[in-house]
Amino acid sequence: MEKLDAKTLISNSNTFRIADLGCATGPNTFFLIDDIIKSVETTLGSNSLKTTKPEFLVFFNDLPKNDFNTLFISLPQDRSYFAVGVPGSFHGRVLPESSVHMVVTMGATHWLSNVPKEVMDISSKAWNKGKVHYSDAPEEVVKAYEEQFGRDMEKFLEARAIEIVSGGLLVVGMCGIPKEMPFSNLADSIMYSSMADVLLQMQFEGLISEEQVETFNIPIYSASPEEVTVLVEKNGCFTVESMELMDPTAWLKRPMNVEDVQQWMVCIKATMGSLFINHFGDHLLNDIFDRLTAKLAGLTEKIESSYRKKVMLFFALKRK
Amino acid sequence: MEKLDAKTLISNSNTFRIADLGCATGPNTFFLIDDIIKSVETTLGSNSLKTTKPEFLVFFNDLPKNDFNTLFISLPQDRSYFAVGVPGSFHGRVLPESSVHMVVTMGATHWLSNVPKEVMDISSKAWNKGKVHYSDAPEEVVKAYEEQFGRDMEKFLEARAIEIVSGGLLVVGMCGIPKEMPFSNLADSIMYSSMADVLLQMQFEGLISEEQVETFNIPIYSASPEEVTVLVEKNGCFTVESMELMDPTAWLKRPMNVEDVQQWMVCIKATMGSLFINHFGDHLLNDIFDRLTAKLAGLTEKIESSYRKKVMLFFALKRK
Repeated sequence: MEKLDAKTLISNSNTFRIADLGCATGPNTFFLIDDIIKSVETTLGSNSLKTTKPEFLVFFNDLPKNDFNTLFISLPQDRSYFAVGVPGSFHGRVLPESSVHMVVTMGATHWLSNVPKEVMDISSKAWNKGKVHYSDAPEEVVKAYEEQFGRDMEKFLEARAIEIVSGGLLVVGMCGIPKEMPFSNLADSIMYSSMADVLLQMQFEGLISEEQVETFNIPIYSASPEEVTVLVEKNGCFTVESMELMDPTAWLKRPMNVEDVQQWMVCIKATMGSLFINHFGDHLLNDIFDRLTAKLAGLTEKIESSYRKKVMLFFALKRK
Repeated sequence: MEKLDAKTLISNSNTFRIADLGCATGPNTFFLIDDIIKSVETTLGSNSLKTTKPEFLVFFNDLPKNDFNTLFISLPQDRSYFAVGVPGSFHGRVLPESSVHMVVTMGATHWLSNVPKEVMDISSKAWNKGKVHYSDAPEEVVKAYEEQFGRDMEKFLEARAIEIVSGGLLVVGMCGIPKEMPFSNLADSIMYSSMADVLLQMQFEGLISEEQVETFNIPIYSASPEEVTVLVEKNGCFTVESMELMDPTAWLKRPMNVEDVQQWMVCIKATMGSLFINHFGDHLLNDIFDRLTAKLAGLTEKIESSYRKKVMLFFALKRK
């Protein structure tokens, strides 16, 4: 917040405008917005006697298929801001030029706009046979994911550079990884390979087809601070105010037990469930996640010994 | 549109901001917005060589229980504006100070924020026994509706005066009526008294209770240009650029036949259906409207001979 000259930014309109991109249906986004507004109010507070109290406008953005009805009905009754919903993909423009002072996006920009095409192409060297992710996959698959992330982040930064006012902030939290660490070192790698095992077993049992398994890939990418920095510099419209890997929240604790795995899988099902539903159908979702949970419950020691610390990437950019 | 100096208004931000209050789920709102944007673009067009093409931001507002998911999915793919949804009642603030250049609201401001309390109070002189509307009702009932409209329009204008920039326009289309004409002269009066007849018959048949019938009132008010003008002057923040009663669209044509009545009732069911559902339950809606349609089909001559011309009130106000 100390990077932000809120007072000058809103000097024309007296309205501070915030966007949360990939907000889902709440309530996390409401806590986040409350924190931001309190910080901005504190920043402005020292001059509160001289100036009119600012108003806040919050743009809640997600894909058009997001359940905005639930979001709107859940909005805190006693909120101190005007709330609007913005349907659209943040890989393109969603707001007018210079319309926001601060943009936040938490847990969304590691989602690729789509699975890289070559990964699903049997004639390509990047064909990702028998896997659901680039973890432990051939170099060509890793490269395909990396390049897709590069194109997506490029579009994301281009759009934000237009939407954010000069001096405004872009704050991102997403999946991260230390530079040049292979993804197979990470705990999530065990989850992805277990997913593949479960799907192959279900194919063997005739519940799903070989084609379904071969064409299923999870479009999530963990970026290193260094590769994001390169993309930001390439874009040229922002200065890097902060860029760091942080530890994820504490629930993956040691010693890890079956309840921890169950809790983990509830989160994964909530975030990735729709991918499975769209690809394999609604009726198989519980079966897939029951099998996955059972499998991972037998792998707690392996998960514990994997790399699990600095896997959240946070960065704050300032619009030049 | 000639009342609007669009060029000066957007000189700071290059974004023209429009709000449609009470937009429902489309598609009418999209046609309206397209027309407005084309007009503004034409107005700005003469200077297009000198200035950057403006961007448009459209705030689609309705109550939080409105189906914004349907609205967002129905948004035209090739639209030339950024679209956001705003959940909230237009009887209060829904947007920040000086945030919009033009506000339109079509077919929404004749809805009262609630049924006047005294109308449902058995101990009040304004108790509206055996009726669903102030048409043909005692003077006290008419007064209660009129005062409720006055309070609602007062709040509506107060909120818009804050939200609309100086020089911006507020354009309203709603149910209207010539000054001092009794509502019982209007075709809608026949519909409201038929509604009451249908409900009393259903009470007689034991399908609904006496209490349900006695407490059901439709919170819709038709205003005269003169009474709106008084409210605008009382508010003091707007100049009246236009204020006129217009003929409704042509479907209530002469000679009127059964199909016309059916079509009319489809519209009424779409707009008022939820009132009946909330009060009498989902299961009776079709029964009520089937009976109402049958009843009105036998009254076409009476409807034809009633006053049906200047019952749409349109006005345009400019923020001082």
